[in-house]
Amino acid sequence: MSLGNVSVVLVRPRGAANVGAVARAMKNTGISDLVLVRPELSTSFVAQAMAVHAQEVLAEARQCDSLASAVAPCALVVGTTCRAGGYRAAVESPREAAARIVRAATANRVALVFGPEDHGLSNEDLKACQLLLAIPTAPAYPSLNLAQAVLVCCYELFLAAQGTPETSPRVLAPAAQIEFMFRRLQEALLAIGFLHPGNPEHIMFSLRRILGQADLDERDVRIFLALARQIEWSACSRLDADSTEGGLAVQGGE
Amino acid sequence: MSLGNVSVVLVRPRGAANVGAVARAMKNTGISDLVLVRPELSTSFVAQAMAVHAQEVLAEARQCDSLASAVAPCALVVGTTCRAGGYRAAVESPREAAARIVRAATANRVALVFGPEDHGLSNEDLKACQLLLAIPTAPAYPSLNLAQAVLVCCYELFLAAQGTPETSPRVLAPAAQIEFMFRRLQEALLAIGFLHPGNPEHIMFSLRRILGQADLDERDVRIFLALARQIEWSACSRLDADSTEGGLAVQGGE
Repeated sequence: MSLGNVSVVLVRPRGAANVGAVARAMKNTGISDLVLVRPELSTSFVAQAMAVHAQEVLAEARQCDSLASAVAPCALVVGTTCRAGGYRAAVESPREAAARIVRAATANRVALVFGPEDHGLSNEDLKACQLLLAIPTAPAYPSLNLAQAVLVCCYELFLAAQGTPETSPRVLAPAAQIEFMFRRLQEALLAIGFLHPGNPEHIMFSLRRILGQADLDERDVRIFLALARQIEWSACSRLDADSTEGGLAVQGGE
Repeated sequence: MSLGNVSVVLVRPRGAANVGAVARAMKNTGISDLVLVRPELSTSFVAQAMAVHAQEVLAEARQCDSLASAVAPCALVVGTTCRAGGYRAAVESPREAAARIVRAATANRVALVFGPEDHGLSNEDLKACQLLLAIPTAPAYPSLNLAQAVLVCCYELFLAAQGTPETSPRVLAPAAQIEFMFRRLQEALLAIGFLHPGNPEHIMFSLRRILGQADLDERDVRIFLALARQIEWSACSRLDADSTEGGLAVQGGE
């Protein structure tokens, strides 16, 4: 199968040479859609020199003002990190995740998202991602060059795509719907005091990770939207009836 | 096991930036011995800039006058090519060959040999090789950048050297906990009228499928147990306050 539905999204890239090398790595592995989010460079002759025979990948690269708009049409948003721990607890290696990503890409747009050269994706960027990849590396020097990281991920997808038989594709919910669902869930869970108003993101991040692994389709999203509505209805009725009682009975599992 | 017995041999490299990027890729994958055969460059500041934190790989790189002398101490000499046919008839992919190369490297010096940027290894060079690797790539643009080719080969060796599982195995919640969690969620969702009392299984089945894909660990289960408790608390308060109102406001998303 082809990787025509896969986009490589570079968030705030700084090195023109890296962007050129990314374009070449993409063409080497049969991927052509490049998206630059607020690039801090001009796609200069350096980028073109590094792209060599992948000039058209550079020429057709799209620019976006935000990661959210870059991934809006995507049903699966895959982030990359070289760090583990904290919000990055549940990471997979590109090899582990490749078959699943390729399967999703049979019928859906998929984004592979890479952060800036120096610091990688921010926590804010990571929120947009349903799946996190970390490339296994030697502990003495875990940080790959940007274009090298892109190549490893694309190479794993390329190999997985070659071995993937065509199966009935599953159409997943697009990222914008998923994001709306999480916003509605957050409101509802705040309304019943499940989330701490001072730090709702803490538990929401776990829910994003858990549901991010679940390949939600539009029907699944409707279930969670209805659940949020019902939870809120329950909370409002309670508050209407007795506004003095209530509060934070349980602090969300931790 | 370590890859201390593996050498990367670059034959007549021309780009200082490439050699620097090769040094970084090597250190990223736990390989440190770099040999340059008749390099047509000075290991300039460009190479050092690209090496970033792999300066010592560059500083300790050896230079040789011929490929033969470079690989003389090696028990296995592995060449790389992006072309097939002729002398290149019997090529393997890096993934196919990785386990065998790593096995050889447990007790022997092994060389991974890469040709010049423009034409790759000559037929004469290939004669020194016992095994030929070709990296699978898209037919539209099969030629990888030198440092990218080195990275893919070293990455495959690195993964093969680590043995089987590439990430630390994740300890998931046992089935009994998961089952208890779903029972508690069902009770809570019945209490707020999200599930139909006559057929709660209908929506629960979707939730089981969705969360069943999510590889829940014990912390995740605690989050959902706390959520169930909080939803119930909200529902009970409501019912206490006004037992005449309420009912099935929403039928669960369908």
